[in-house]
Amino acid sequence: MKLVRFGPKGREKPGMLDAAGVVRDLSGVVDDIAGETLTPAGLAALRALDPAALPAAPAGERLGPCVGRVGKFVCVGLNYADHAAETGAEPPAEPVLFMKATSAISGPCDDVVRPRGSTKLDWEIELGVVIGKEARHVSEEEARGHIAGYCVVNDISERAFQLESTGQWTKGKSCDTFGPIGPHLATAEEIPDPLALSMRLSVNGRTCQNGSTRTMIFGPYSLVSYISRFMSLQPGDVISTGTPPGVGLGRNPPTFLKPGDVMELEIEGLGVQRQRVVDYDG
Amino acid sequence: MKLVRFGPKGREKPGMLDAAGVVRDLSGVVDDIAGETLTPAGLAALRALDPAALPAAPAGERLGPCVGRVGKFVCVGLNYADHAAETGAEPPAEPVLFMKATSAISGPCDDVVRPRGSTKLDWEIELGVVIGKEARHVSEEEARGHIAGYCVVNDISERAFQLESTGQWTKGKSCDTFGPIGPHLATAEEIPDPLALSMRLSVNGRTCQNGSTRTMIFGPYSLVSYISRFMSLQPGDVISTGTPPGVGLGRNPPTFLKPGDVMELEIEGLGVQRQRVVDYDG
Repeated sequence: MKLVRFGPKGREKPGMLDAAGVVRDLSGVVDDIAGETLTPAGLAALRALDPAALPAAPAGERLGPCVGRVGKFVCVGLNYADHAAETGAEPPAEPVLFMKATSAISGPCDDVVRPRGSTKLDWEIELGVVIGKEARHVSEEEARGHIAGYCVVNDISERAFQLESTGQWTKGKSCDTFGPIGPHLATAEEIPDPLALSMRLSVNGRTCQNGSTRTMIFGPYSLVSYISRFMSLQPGDVISTGTPPGVGLGRNPPTFLKPGDVMELEIEGLGVQRQRVVDYDG
Repeated sequence: MKLVRFGPKGREKPGMLDAAGVVRDLSGVVDDIAGETLTPAGLAALRALDPAALPAAPAGERLGPCVGRVGKFVCVGLNYADHAAETGAEPPAEPVLFMKATSAISGPCDDVVRPRGSTKLDWEIELGVVIGKEARHVSEEEARGHIAGYCVVNDISERAFQLESTGQWTKGKSCDTFGPIGPHLATAEEIPDPLALSMRLSVNGRTCQNGSTRTMIFGPYSLVSYISRFMSLQPGDVISTGTPPGVGLGRNPPTFLKPGDVMELEIEGLGVQRQRVVDYDG
């Protein structure tokens, strides 16, 4: 299944794509694509539905983030062998974890807002893993059963805030609109091998990242297992699994986003995101 | 007002303390001490109530975390001049921010679970600031109006996970039960000067931390203003503002928690926490 959330910001309704790619309205069936709906039992109930029997959503509705009420947005740094090389870092012996604020989450085609004082706004296409069952100390073998599905994440980063300020990376990762997720959540059975997905990000039509999940150091099952040793994971938590080479910081010379720039992101089987960069106007 | 949440874990009801310190049940009035209830309008509605007219909660009920549905748990590192000195770090020029997982939040007297593989479990008494109104780029002067109130936080930390593993601090800060908050949320009018509160933490009856919010480098208004430049803050977000000297890592020799140890924490006007350390039994 391909699950979506559609409608105005903050008032999204749950939906699913039918075979023709039309959004069908699930709001008569579940309250949201969130929490209990993402559990094995919740997804089984949706799988039993006939999408053609559901009302079609109005055409042209905005897509929101494909998961609602995200409890945690856990990110993995330097998780592609080729990206670690690009930044000059050694590939880590264990996953590097950090967190993005859940308030940073936005829709797949919402504008990305360049914050006040930003000088080094950067992109990172990533495979997002959505949790479907509480996980504590699960093994790699068990981890698969705790994953509801996958989605595209753009782990927008402000490199000066992240790396040139005091302390941890949080400051450069958490601004509003720094976490577009979607367009859809592909449930796990749609992605039999999450380590064989091509991924591509362009800025103003020029390809910047052109990689594959094949070069991930720690794959989704390994990451869910590892993270579950340090914190419990709940349905609706999102893990963003790191980015392949080609970020702005790694270019020569480094290149950053400016208002008017347009990013397009695609991961095989997970759809396309498209964001325009705008300046903060508050 | 002193607001609490009482009842079994995950099914807490909202309450308030009356003049005699008895918990009065607010579940007929609001759904939770969370979100909208924490806004200026929500708190004004509670202030208009006569606590004596509310049903008393059953005596001896467990107190849960004093805020529900916390969206973000933002923490400030090295924010006491005397604690920075103790760890050998320079006082930071700007606040050091990191995040704890919201799944780490627990009640003020719930057991603290020593995770599998833990060797350096440590305590940190901190003043918690609870947001009551969305904040984006607010000034220090405006910040006060965005604070619903204050509570005690124990920022439990596993120093090996935090400092000796790869990458960011998240791993040593986010385990389940690493974030006791409460016993009560004291609304802001109860704490006219948050920079004049004595704070004390003991382990097995021996005082380990005996400080005052007076030695904070960045105070609550300054922190709310600063953090709101990097992420928007929503009602129910909690900011933990750093710890004074006396943590286990700073002792000579370093001293860490073991099963059976009992921590007691008190901040002036914010009540007492008491936690027993137990081993993970999963």
